[in-house]
Amino acid sequence: MTNVLFTFTVKDNLKEQLQVDFPEVKFTFSSIKDIESVGLAEIIVSYGEDIVPETLDRAPMLKWLMVASAGLEKMPLKEIGDRNILITNVRGIHKVPMAESVMAHLLALKRSLPWIYTQQDKREWSRKSGSTELFGSTAIVLGPGAIGSEIGRLLQAFGVRTIGCNRSGESAPHMEDMISFKQLGETLPKADIVISVLPSTKETRGLLTYEHFVLMKEEGIFMNFGRGDLVKEEDLLKAMKERQIAYAVLDVFETEPLNEEHPLWELEGVIVSPHVSSHSSEYVPRALKIFTHNLYEWMKKGTDFQNVIDVEKGY
Amino acid sequence: MTNVLFTFTVKDNLKEQLQVDFPEVKFTFSSIKDIESVGLAEIIVSYGEDIVPETLDRAPMLKWLMVASAGLEKMPLKEIGDRNILITNVRGIHKVPMAESVMAHLLALKRSLPWIYTQQDKREWSRKSGSTELFGSTAIVLGPGAIGSEIGRLLQAFGVRTIGCNRSGESAPHMEDMISFKQLGETLPKADIVISVLPSTKETRGLLTYEHFVLMKEEGIFMNFGRGDLVKEEDLLKAMKERQIAYAVLDVFETEPLNEEHPLWELEGVIVSPHVSSHSSEYVPRALKIFTHNLYEWMKKGTDFQNVIDVEKGY
Repeated sequence: MTNVLFTFTVKDNLKEQLQVDFPEVKFTFSSIKDIESVGLAEIIVSYGEDIVPETLDRAPMLKWLMVASAGLEKMPLKEIGDRNILITNVRGIHKVPMAESVMAHLLALKRSLPWIYTQQDKREWSRKSGSTELFGSTAIVLGPGAIGSEIGRLLQAFGVRTIGCNRSGESAPHMEDMISFKQLGETLPKADIVISVLPSTKETRGLLTYEHFVLMKEEGIFMNFGRGDLVKEEDLLKAMKERQIAYAVLDVFETEPLNEEHPLWELEGVIVSPHVSSHSSEYVPRALKIFTHNLYEWMKKGTDFQNVIDVEKGY
Repeated sequence: MTNVLFTFTVKDNLKEQLQVDFPEVKFTFSSIKDIESVGLAEIIVSYGEDIVPETLDRAPMLKWLMVASAGLEKMPLKEIGDRNILITNVRGIHKVPMAESVMAHLLALKRSLPWIYTQQDKREWSRKSGSTELFGSTAIVLGPGAIGSEIGRLLQAFGVRTIGCNRSGESAPHMEDMISFKQLGETLPKADIVISVLPSTKETRGLLTYEHFVLMKEEGIFMNFGRGDLVKEEDLLKAMKERQIAYAVLDVFETEPLNEEHPLWELEGVIVSPHVSSHSSEYVPRALKIFTHNLYEWMKKGTDFQNVIDVEKGY
C-alpha cells in the first residue's frame, strides 16, 4: 500500500476522484503536525510552507514531495536533494488567473469601474465617466515568461502594442518588441502601461527606482504582480505622492500583510490587491491534474514526471 | 465658402486640424439655438437630439446632416428625406469601448475587484477573495452584430465558448454556435453568462421574461448593454430578489436616469452602470475621422460617403 499524505484538505468530490483513480493508494488528508501520518508517508502533498528540515527527519519513508505552489524560495532544497527525494511543483497553473486579474484591473481603470461602483453606492446617476480605452495603448511586460506571455497574448487581442523586457532582451511569445533591462529607461517614456511579473532574483531586486516613474507618462499605469522587492517602497511612495504616474496596481509588497496604518492603503491612484491575483476556484483541481499525472507515473514506476525541480537550480 | 455648423464643441487641437485639412470651409462651433448659423449652414454636425422638424425649417441651406451618434430613433427622418438632405451617422464607433466595458465588468466580477476595492476602503488585508475565472465559461451573446461579434472575439481570446443568438439563428463572426430567439429557453441552462447588445425593435421588446432568469444557472451573470426594454423591470427585480442568478450588470434601463429611490441601486448582485459603456475619450476623434472622410467627398462632389442612412429603413 502506497501512503500519500496531503497536509491540506480538498473538496469531497476531488478526494473521491483520487480514490477511484488510485484504489491501491491510501490517501490521508491531515496536517504536517500529524506525526504518525508523516512517519508513514511515501508521498507528501503540501503547499510547501510547512516543510522544514525537521519535517524530513520525521519522514523516513518520504520519496516524493509534491508542492502545490510555484515559489520554492523557502524550501529546504539542499536537504531534500541530500535525501534523494523527488520534488515537483505546479509551475504554470497561475497563468490563467493571473493574466485575467491583470486584464481585469487594466480594463476596470480604463472603463471607470471604481467610479461606477462609487456612484452606485451614492445612488447618483451621472454620465461623466471620463472613460478611456485600452485599445491603442503601449505596454511593457517585465518578465515575459509563461505568465507574462499570456498577458501579452490578451493585451494584443485588445489592440495593445506589447514590449517584452528581460535581462537579455531575447525574444518571447506575444511580444511585438523586446528590450533588455538596460534599455528600460529609454523605453519607459513610450509606455502607457508597465506590468511586472518578475520573480525575485539578484537582477530584479530594486530594478525599478524613483527615476523610472519620473520617466513614465503622467497617465501611466504601473502594475506589480511579481515580487514586492522589485522597487523600494519609499521610491514608489514618493512617485505616487508626486503623481508621477496615474495608477499603481499592487498585488505584492515589500512586507506582507500590509498593516492597517500603511500609507499605501489611502494614497491616490494606488490599488491594493492583497496578493490574490493567482487565486482561483480552479487552482486545486488544476494542481490535482498535475499530481494525478505524476502519481500514475509513480505507480507504474515510470519517469515522465511533470514539473520536476532541480534542487541545485531551485526551479 | 462652405458653412459647417457644429452644435457641440470639440477640443482645440481637433478644431485646428479641421481648419488645416479644409481651409476653404468655415467651421462654426455653437448650438442649435444659434439661429443665424443654422440659417447659413450647408452642413450641420450634431449629436442628433437637438434636431427637430422646426430645425429643418430654420435651415434652408442645409444639404447634409452629420449625426455623431448611432441611434437615430428620435430623428425626424421623414422630414429629412422629404427635403433631400443627406444624413450620415457614426455607426461602428461604439464597438471598441462597449466591448471593453463588457469585458471589464465580467473580469472584475470573476476576479473579485469589487471585493478588493471594498477591502482597501476598510484597510483590511484578507486573502479570502473567492475569485473564479472567465476561462472555460459559456456565454450567449444576444445580438451578434458589429458590437456583439467584437465581444465574441474577446471572449474567445479568454477561452470562453460563444453562442450567438439572433432572430433567424443565421451565423455571425466569432460565435462557435448560433441559435434563434426561439431556442433561447433550451439553451439558457448551459450558459454562465448572457450578454445583450440588442437594439429596441418589436422582436426584442420584452424578449426576456422572469422565466428566462429561472432557467439560467444560479451563478449566472446577465448583462444588458443594449436597450432597457429588453426585459420588464418588474421581471428583473423579481428574479434578482429571489437570487435566480448571481449578477445583473445593467447599462440600460426602462427609464433613464434611474431616480434616487429606485430599488435597483441597492439590490444584491446588481451593478448599475449609468449608460456609459460606449463613452470614450476616443469617441469624438473617431467620429471626426468619419466626418473628415465624408467632407473630402463632399468638397470634391464625390459620392463615396461612409454611414449613409436610408431614411425609409432608419439605418
